[in-house]
Amino acid sequence: MESKFDSKEWSSGVWTHFTDVRRRSPLVQCITNLVSMDLVANTLLSAGASPAMVHSVAEVPDFTPHVHALCVNVGTLTPDWLPSMKAAAELASQLGKPWVLDPAAVSCSGFRLKACLELVELKPSVIKGNGSEIIALSSASQGHTKGADSSHESTEAIEAAKSLALSSGAVVAVSGAVDIVTDGKRVIGVHNGTKMMQKITATGCSLSGLVAAFLAVDPLHPLEATVSAMSIFGIAGELGEEMANGPASLRMHLIDSLYGLDETTVLSRVKITRLG
Amino acid sequence: MESKFDSKEWSSGVWTHFTDVRRRSPLVQCITNLVSMDLVANTLLSAGASPAMVHSVAEVPDFTPHVHALCVNVGTLTPDWLPSMKAAAELASQLGKPWVLDPAAVSCSGFRLKACLELVELKPSVIKGNGSEIIALSSASQGHTKGADSSHESTEAIEAAKSLALSSGAVVAVSGAVDIVTDGKRVIGVHNGTKMMQKITATGCSLSGLVAAFLAVDPLHPLEATVSAMSIFGIAGELGEEMANGPASLRMHLIDSLYGLDETTVLSRVKITRLG
Amino acid sequence: MESKFDSKEWSSGVWTHFTDVRRRSPLVQCITNLVSMDLVANTLLSAGASPAMVHSVAEVPDFTPHVHALCVNVGTLTPDWLPSMKAAAELASQLGKPWVLDPAAVSCSGFRLKACLELVELKPSVIKGNGSEIIALSSASQGHTKGADSSHESTEAIEAAKSLALSSGAVVAVSGAVDIVTDGKRVIGVHNGTKMMQKITATGCSLSGLVAAFLAVDPLHPLEATVSAMSIFGIAGELGEEMANGPASLRMHLIDSLYGLDETTVLSRVKITRLG
Repeated sequence: MESKFDSKEWSSGVWTHFTDVRRRSPLVQCITNLVSMDLVANTLLSAGASPAMVHSVAEVPDFTPHVHALCVNVGTLTPDWLPSMKAAAELASQLGKPWVLDPAAVSCSGFRLKACLELVELKPSVIKGNGSEIIALSSASQGHTKGADSSHESTEAIEAAKSLALSSGAVVAVSGAVDIVTDGKRVIGVHNGTKMMQKITATGCSLSGLVAAFLAVDPLHPLEATVSAMSIFGIAGELGEEMANGPASLRMHLIDSLYGLDETTVLSRVKITRLG
Repeated sequence: MESKFDSKEWSSGVWTHFTDVRRRSPLVQCITNLVSMDLVANTLLSAGASPAMVHSVAEVPDFTPHVHALCVNVGTLTPDWLPSMKAAAELASQLGKPWVLDPAAVSCSGFRLKACLELVELKPSVIKGNGSEIIALSSASQGHTKGADSSHESTEAIEAAKSLALSSGAVVAVSGAVDIVTDGKRVIGVHNGTKMMQKITATGCSLSGLVAAFLAVDPLHPLEATVSAMSIFGIAGELGEEMANGPASLRMHLIDSLYGLDETTVLSRVKITRLG
Repeated sequence: MESKFDSKEWSSGVWTHFTDVRRRSPLVQCITNLVSMDLVANTLLSAGASPAMVHSVAEVPDFTPHVHALCVNVGTLTPDWLPSMKAAAELASQLGKPWVLDPAAVSCSGFRLKACLELVELKPSVIKGNGSEIIALSSASQGHTKGADSSHESTEAIEAAKSLALSSGAVVAVSGAVDIVTDGKRVIGVHNGTKMMQKITATGCSLSGLVAAFLAVDPLHPLEATVSAMSIFGIAGELGEEMANGPASLRMHLIDSLYGLDETTVLSRVKITRLG
């Protein structure tokens, strides 16, 4: 029954997903923004996945068929990058490979909003953004949010997320103090993570890459895989913050913690609830 | 009277500027080079500002009107990036928004020198470079300096800086062992910072971004805002170096220190003098 | 006699090369991939070299004649970057400047393989890749290896490396548990480094940049210079790992260690053998 929520089962699922990523080391193609490439790649490597920052449209037909998942992030979008994003997304969808859309700063321009709407048409498995991004994409109306940072709490975006999930067919994830994940029917809250992670650039992009890696090992359960990835990344952040003196040492300890995470720590820290 | 220099007043001004950046969290658009994006964004986040690495010419008309300041850095300039730099700079100037030009490695090619001269025409609020860059830009003659590093002390560039300030209308800042800031009349020296910061790539670019954030909260006093940003960044570097074992740990501790800086530390460490 | 291998002499050569890099601070132009720019630049700075990430074809004619070595890395190749790589490589060869080709993920597409074969024609001094890359480039047949990671041990690539060295005229270096360096006749093994370095993105690219810096100070002995660079980078990694808790702290300690390396440590740790 859908309304029953077994918290122990979810915790165990998080660990199983993570173990699968480490064991199978999925190849994840990332067409991401220029700011985040380094941290996205290091996040995936630390989690045991195999990142490939291949973004040329000239390489998509040869390369994308070999990947296990794809992540597309529009954070520094220019018109010359869009064709490769579309080509890779279309190919991934055709071949039944899971892919993640991160509509970073979607409402910063009409060009970017239009591009994201076109990418949504190509059937992402998961759309992951902050509250403002999900609200903007869901309403498809061009607001002017503040750069890449969110001016909405994730919980304010629940209805928008559900509506976007239903219209797009994607699982929608909203990062925030509480991360929200919904398939339009179920709404799950992930309560891991720390506030200081927002003071490090590209943590959101890195999480999107990690979601793709988790989807790669469980493509038929995008909601569960997304919840697991968000919980694992949040736990690594919590452990990192215990050792950190500021955002730069948090960044280092976050990646180290992700690399070293063990079962006992994960099971004791996973905090997932059913919100709807 | 201009010749009177109240060191206590300047120290207090540095802290006020920094507090304003933290409180108002200005949105700073950075069209910077590919090497520095990560560190520039993290510097701005740690200082409390909100960075936006939006560089597509397709997004400038929609986005630039909403930013509080702009930073343009030509460190990895290619012909296809120049139009967006010019468009953003022109729009910023028209709308009365402060903007910083960092003529990184200006003399490495005729193409880059020409591009920088064109950008100077678009009325930057501040031009910030090392000694060699400011001398080259000021003389507008193409020398061949050594890559991105300076072969001139900042103090050798004082006359060139004054002359460039007078001809361009911009405040000119020269980074070095002593940072120089001039509006063509006053010449201020900032004695904070450490030598090892030059062994970290993109610290200069990050400082330019930080100057833009400080300009955003005090656009009518570009000289004072620039001095404040240079002093704060230098102090963060000094604190960082006390904990560092080399350039990479310095980089981490610098950002952490910037995030954690308090009033007592700032007031006791600010070192600003009147040089002319 | 070529078959005689004096281990003490090689150790001393490693230190001499490194001292020369620190003393002469060669200017190294890097046309590298978007993921690695930050770490490549910081590696070169920590080693005492002067990096210049100048990649525009518009700047090659003015800039490349002034550099001491060039590094070309195709890790995020797109058709618009290829002309500048070729122009810089061609100019370097014409002017007798050493240059390194890093055929990163060469077999991920037909486009990339073709580009690498064209670059090989422009007479690199050194070709440096992992086992899979060297095998793929050597056979010039398009396989489908797994992203940027190697699915071959370096030792499996010895014959391919020798064959590529002989056909291209370049020294060929294969990174792995044991690094292999060959000029087609001699085969040298470098046994420094640690496994966890593979969990940090861009360490391979950074090593390629470092090889270029070492070539710059000893262009007539590309095999020896390459061996020295690989040994130094490996030793910095070993020292780093002793202090590290995971890949991100290893990355920091690696760079710090490279910056601080002294003669006693280097001489006691160099591990080079003659393999053929």
